[in-house]
Amino acid sequence: MTLNQTHDPARRSWVTDANDEATDFPLQNLPYGVFRSGPVATPRLGVAIGQSIFDLAAAAQFGLLPESTTDACRQTSLNDLMALGAPGWSALRSRLSELLGADTCPVGPLRLRAESCLTPMAGATMFLPAHIGDYTDFYASIFHATNVGTMLRPDNPLLPNYKWVPIGYHGRSSSIVVSGTPVRRPCGQLKPADAPAPVFGPCKNLDYELELAAFVGPGNPLGTSVPIAQAAQQLFGVVLLNDWSARDMQTWEYQPLGPFLAKNFASTISPWVVTMEALAPFRAPAFVRPAGDPAPLPYLADAADQLSGGLDLTLEVWIATAQMRAAGAAAVRLTSGNFQTMYWTLTQLLAHHTSNGCNLRPGDLLGSGTVSGPAKDARGCLLELTWRGAEPLKLPNGEERKFLADGDEVILHGYAERAGARRIGLGECRGLVLPTAD
Amino acid sequence: MTLNQTHDPARRSWVTDANDEATDFPLQNLPYGVFRSGPVATPRLGVAIGQSIFDLAAAAQFGLLPESTTDACRQTSLNDLMALGAPGWSALRSRLSELLGADTCPVGPLRLRAESCLTPMAGATMFLPAHIGDYTDFYASIFHATNVGTMLRPDNPLLPNYKWVPIGYHGRSSSIVVSGTPVRRPCGQLKPADAPAPVFGPCKNLDYELELAAFVGPGNPLGTSVPIAQAAQQLFGVVLLNDWSARDMQTWEYQPLGPFLAKNFASTISPWVVTMEALAPFRAPAFVRPAGDPAPLPYLADAADQLSGGLDLTLEVWIATAQMRAAGAAAVRLTSGNFQTMYWTLTQLLAHHTSNGCNLRPGDLLGSGTVSGPAKDARGCLLELTWRGAEPLKLPNGEERKFLADGDEVILHGYAERAGARRIGLGECRGLVLPTAD
Repeated sequence: MTLNQTHDPARRSWVTDANDEATDFPLQNLPYGVFRSGPVATPRLGVAIGQSIFDLAAAAQFGLLPESTTDACRQTSLNDLMALGAPGWSALRSRLSELLGADTCPVGPLRLRAESCLTPMAGATMFLPAHIGDYTDFYASIFHATNVGTMLRPDNPLLPNYKWVPIGYHGRSSSIVVSGTPVRRPCGQLKPADAPAPVFGPCKNLDYELELAAFVGPGNPLGTSVPIAQAAQQLFGVVLLNDWSARDMQTWEYQPLGPFLAKNFASTISPWVVTMEALAPFRAPAFVRPAGDPAPLPYLADAADQLSGGLDLTLEVWIATAQMRAAGAAAVRLTSGNFQTMYWTLTQLLAHHTSNGCNLRPGDLLGSGTVSGPAKDARGCLLELTWRGAEPLKLPNGEERKFLADGDEVILHGYAERAGARRIGLGECRGLVLPTAD
Repeated sequence: MTLNQTHDPARRSWVTDANDEATDFPLQNLPYGVFRSGPVATPRLGVAIGQSIFDLAAAAQFGLLPESTTDACRQTSLNDLMALGAPGWSALRSRLSELLGADTCPVGPLRLRAESCLTPMAGATMFLPAHIGDYTDFYASIFHATNVGTMLRPDNPLLPNYKWVPIGYHGRSSSIVVSGTPVRRPCGQLKPADAPAPVFGPCKNLDYELELAAFVGPGNPLGTSVPIAQAAQQLFGVVLLNDWSARDMQTWEYQPLGPFLAKNFASTISPWVVTMEALAPFRAPAFVRPAGDPAPLPYLADAADQLSGGLDLTLEVWIATAQMRAAGAAAVRLTSGNFQTMYWTLTQLLAHHTSNGCNLRPGDLLGSGTVSGPAKDARGCLLELTWRGAEPLKLPNGEERKFLADGDEVILHGYAERAGARRIGLGECRGLVLPTAD
């Protein structure tokens, strides 16, 4: 993907707080979301710019948007926009960059109309960005797979298929919620290794998982596959994903068909979809496989993907406990990893998914799996960070955590920054743990 | 569920072929589907009666249906009807039984209007009965689990969780197709046990799986669970399900997160949803656990479910190979099992699914897992029938099968018959295997 004027780091927006160095949403980002604000109850599409939302439904009404994208911009979810494909995405981004740029939209009648499409983000309610037909979760970090494997199967940590097959499984669509939705601690069957029988009760080992998730664009018909060289055009954009996990339930239930109730009680995503086009300046080489690792099979191998299929994206987990919040203390960071450490690229995941003829539809969501790097402070879940509770985490206020406690709030952040590019961010993915229902 | 006039085996329909003994769709069945016929392109809801379809959109237009169900009957899928819940379902069934009964709808103006709602089934195109938001597949036959386990893990066939946890996993919604849709042989990674590395190519061990699948009714909000005693009210009805499986791909990919590409290339369902109310005369005691097996945990235990949570439903697999069809030979039966042999009831599956707060939505589909009984001729897939190819199947025309060949057509049938009740059937679930795409 070539860089263009929309990526120019020197350009500024007339939405002045979009020029703040710390904002996730400068003129160069332009992520899409679904919001509601003020008296209008119907969800509308919007673009995050600084601390405001640019209302796409209003902009379409004023005739400000490319004609080919107008219908899609009037919907209540991003699915139709995702279905448009790369030419439509580029045309809309280019136009939005013009409309919101200080240089390209000087004071005048056009600026006045553009200004009237702005709404403060603070007063808006965000929704899931798309209707998610199917949600797939992968397992693309070899560091995560190795750590978890070591705990579950000390004799056999990394299974023989890992370096050949981008391991994935289907998740639950109905329980995907948007950032800010509280998550109730699930109940389930728990069986300590030394107990003769399981008991049913509240999960004791509740965990988060730090993930990146990609929304699928146009998709492919059933019975066809997307070649790896064309897979990048199928990726619309990414969000943060917290794949909440009940570790004690998982240990007991996951054989032989994989995780089920340990995962499907809730998955939280961030509301702003950062497009692959916005991420173009942060493309990076794919993970370099250690000597001795097999090369990907031809259907997963692509020279361009090796060169730039990775993403130089920092991903972080923060926590604020109830005690911290009561004391007015700020959230503390638990983890900082980078998406470049993933063993498989997003395009490899998508090509693999369709290699058997499985159809993807606009709005389908592909989770990366927990993003864990080689360093201890880059482990993307508590299971790894505390080594299954054996090494409890000490928080600055003296509290300890093996797993999550009721009242803990988990906040994921993500951002990309590089010399020569404007820093952009993914916003936040936030979830508060509620106690089990009575 | 109590029996009422709609179950009376003595009653006959004025749709005369609905009174044929061999029909799956007598007056006592009244299954729902979505069809298109003649010049009207929009899918409509219909009820199968003999060899005809009773058009619910037309009947609603004539004011023939209960007012509380009229809107739902005018939709293009059954989701709204499924959302109505048991009172609405009963009211509609009762009215349809009246309208189509020879005794309750004698020759006259009402009969004339009812007759005008009939369309020949032969000329109709069937669609998926509902928009399936999430598809879950279980593993509820202990005979199937034991057989498969013996092949994959000879030292450890039935895992320790099996008798406690109704094992299930999420499947793919996008690739569920309706009976009659051809299924393309998938490609994928194959790794024979003695090969040093996998290769990518057409699946060699393509299999079917004989399953029953239940459509969810009103569902439950996220964070709540459906108690076992209320789970039956959440079940709308059932269809046949062929969970096509690529066994060689499955063996290599399924650890540690379960089957993925080995299953998600296609799943076929029958078009007519037979309601739980129609199945009321065929309720049976739940499977009697052998002495020594643990009792279900309290959240899965219900006295009424033990008494009548089973279904006395015969399920069959038939095959017609290309060679058989060319010779004008009829399909031959490979398997005949009964749903009573399942270790877990449908209500236990549903209660378990929601026990962690996972939300179900109207139209969600719950597959039972392969229905295999204790006898060899009740094994619900070729993997079991041919013991992974070690005991090839001999067909009457001399052909042999270890797994499916291109051109094979697999046809599932299901029916219920009992003394004192009118026999009803599930129709058929049909799929032709096409060769791999070029």
